[in-house]
Amino acid sequence: MNMHFADRVQKLEPAAVYEILKKTGPGKAIAFAAGNPSPAAFPAEEVAELSHKILKEHPVLALQYGPSEGYAPLREQIIAYQAERFGISGKDNDLIITSGATQGIELCAKIFCNDGDTIITENPTFIGSLNSFASYRANVVGIDMEFDGMNMDKLEEALKREKNVRFIYVIPNFQNPSGWTMSLEKRKRVYELAVKYNTLILEDDPYGRLRYFGENIPSIKSFDTENIVLYAGSFSKTISPGLRVGFMHLPKQYATKMAVAKQASDVHTPMLNQMIVNEFMKDNGLANHIEKVCSMYRGKLQLTFDMLEKHLGDNVSYVKPEGGLYVFCRLPEHIDMIDYCAQALDGGVAIVWGNAFFVDPTQKSQYFRINFSSPSDEQLERGIEILGQTFNKMNG
Amino acid sequence: MNMHFADRVQKLEPAAVYEILKKTGPGKAIAFAAGNPSPAAFPAEEVAELSHKILKEHPVLALQYGPSEGYAPLREQIIAYQAERFGISGKDNDLIITSGATQGIELCAKIFCNDGDTIITENPTFIGSLNSFASYRANVVGIDMEFDGMNMDKLEEALKREKNVRFIYVIPNFQNPSGWTMSLEKRKRVYELAVKYNTLILEDDPYGRLRYFGENIPSIKSFDTENIVLYAGSFSKTISPGLRVGFMHLPKQYATKMAVAKQASDVHTPMLNQMIVNEFMKDNGLANHIEKVCSMYRGKLQLTFDMLEKHLGDNVSYVKPEGGLYVFCRLPEHIDMIDYCAQALDGGVAIVWGNAFFVDPTQKSQYFRINFSSPSDEQLERGIEILGQTFNKMNG
Repeated sequence: MNMHFADRVQKLEPAAVYEILKKTGPGKAIAFAAGNPSPAAFPAEEVAELSHKILKEHPVLALQYGPSEGYAPLREQIIAYQAERFGISGKDNDLIITSGATQGIELCAKIFCNDGDTIITENPTFIGSLNSFASYRANVVGIDMEFDGMNMDKLEEALKREKNVRFIYVIPNFQNPSGWTMSLEKRKRVYELAVKYNTLILEDDPYGRLRYFGENIPSIKSFDTENIVLYAGSFSKTISPGLRVGFMHLPKQYATKMAVAKQASDVHTPMLNQMIVNEFMKDNGLANHIEKVCSMYRGKLQLTFDMLEKHLGDNVSYVKPEGGLYVFCRLPEHIDMIDYCAQALDGGVAIVWGNAFFVDPTQKSQYFRINFSSPSDEQLERGIEILGQTFNKMNG
Repeated sequence: MNMHFADRVQKLEPAAVYEILKKTGPGKAIAFAAGNPSPAAFPAEEVAELSHKILKEHPVLALQYGPSEGYAPLREQIIAYQAERFGISGKDNDLIITSGATQGIELCAKIFCNDGDTIITENPTFIGSLNSFASYRANVVGIDMEFDGMNMDKLEEALKREKNVRFIYVIPNFQNPSGWTMSLEKRKRVYELAVKYNTLILEDDPYGRLRYFGENIPSIKSFDTENIVLYAGSFSKTISPGLRVGFMHLPKQYATKMAVAKQASDVHTPMLNQMIVNEFMKDNGLANHIEKVCSMYRGKLQLTFDMLEKHLGDNVSYVKPEGGLYVFCRLPEHIDMIDYCAQALDGGVAIVWGNAFFVDPTQKSQYFRINFSSPSDEQLERGIEILGQTFNKMNG
């Protein structure tokens, strides 16, 4: 029979980054392309012990169906943590456990956007979210990024111009792909504009706790007196992405609909996985682990800076990120960025071209993205050396 | 701000069965309402050992990001099993691991149905699937169920009449809620009709391996020479629903789109959970476990028959299911079914009214559904006694 797909998925294709990743691995290219945490950052022994304990002590709870909104003790623990961290009272907000933050983001598109409704995003931004939005035929409008967050004039123009703007999607901390952090001033301004133009904000914060330098900046959720911020949190970068546990912290009036939509999607997030996270959070376990991880990543980021200085010097420019997983490097105009990435891959290191993260990936970019969390120190040293050699070859 | 939800989820409400379930539990009503496996059926010790072993031996694999289509060794093992069971060659088909069969069913609606496209279902059928279909604004057309499967004349009429029929959704084995099994003749006829009218079949088979009496009937997938059958499988009823591992076994030409859609939904199913299922399947572990579970459920189903005979005799009629989790009982016309369920709940036992499973739940039904897997033997005895007393009170 003839193949037929729904319009919403016609254009959905495997992301370019996954195609690049197939060329990396043992004996192949060094992977600066993924967004994976370091394998050394996983609390493997603790998770092994906890999972064994949970299955011995509460086997039925861990293996039976659970509630769609999530395992109650975990929800309560995260609510308490969010209240402490952001000063948000539990009264107006609720919390739904999701199968990774990606599911929360996808459900926001599903429950808020009719076909053709608008989602405003930073440009460039996380490909996975762009795909989730596209899969509901949202009209995605990208706002140019600056080093301190999106351009506020262009944001306001878009809010004036576009019809049915359902939410503004931002990654304020150590953004993917840029590594840039939104200033406090811009966070307040985004919030004001959302209130003024009667729309929601989807604040995606997978990297917020991975700060290695500088001071924390208050989350947009912490200003949320009007109950318009949907906050997506994740344990993927702090415990394990493979466990697929994230959450949506959102105004109460949206929680029931999100839980029902989640029920129609996958019934609930696996109980064992939620219980592992719940146990791991207790007694400062998560906080202590994050401290160790940050210390490791701080070293890797510093090494990345040092190697970039040594091998590329003034040939590339970048804003030094204070946390997260990425450094976004800008090539001078006379170097073709796509060609540079291709030659680097031939040389043995995989990086992702900056335009892959644009709402319109045909838009030109001089940037490429380096992930520094996943490679070993040796790979960082060797990989950036190759990036320097590739530059010199093309420059010469 | 004013609340706004997308049209596709406007009518999505928590299912009635979940509201009933809130009234059950320790010190409350006996739960004949859920579709839960028996807590005694979980291989808790084995899962505890396997999870510990996996996290000790392959911590990075278990905790890192994994591929959206699923963990390769598990996919291969299931493909081999499906080939052996259904005689389907791997050549034309592929297999995507999903977060429970529900996710596979939801993704079928997402990737095949535009708003208003038609899905034909058995009527009554599984509420969860009806919700997933509704959440993509499908035009769901229910076909009256008979004891041996849906009415084939009405099915053909619908296929002639309806535009853009994307797939026919069936649960051929021990259907939910009816417990009825589609005859081989009707399985072949559904397949012929799907070919004739150029549509797909979504064969949902969560209960297929839970047969306690009689002989297996070949799956529709086993006739699939034309590559039109999407087969949804699950480990929820054979290992654990809490782990959320299921799969879609589907013609190759649809697999890439489903994997990309899954990527946009939750990236991938948790690796640890997939690896647990993979280990558990080895060396006939799953097959041996299913044998034990079937032996237990056979006893529970026989007890249910005996108690129904003792306490309700000819007052209710039902087709004896040969497997699965449900008995669907029909009350005589002079007893109001909704009132009967309410009085049974007051008496201390929760059953679900049959109309809850209709495409149009305002349609009248004389049926109620009993789940016999989850209650203990004592609860089955006491619960059915209450059902008998409730009948006598209303009949008197």
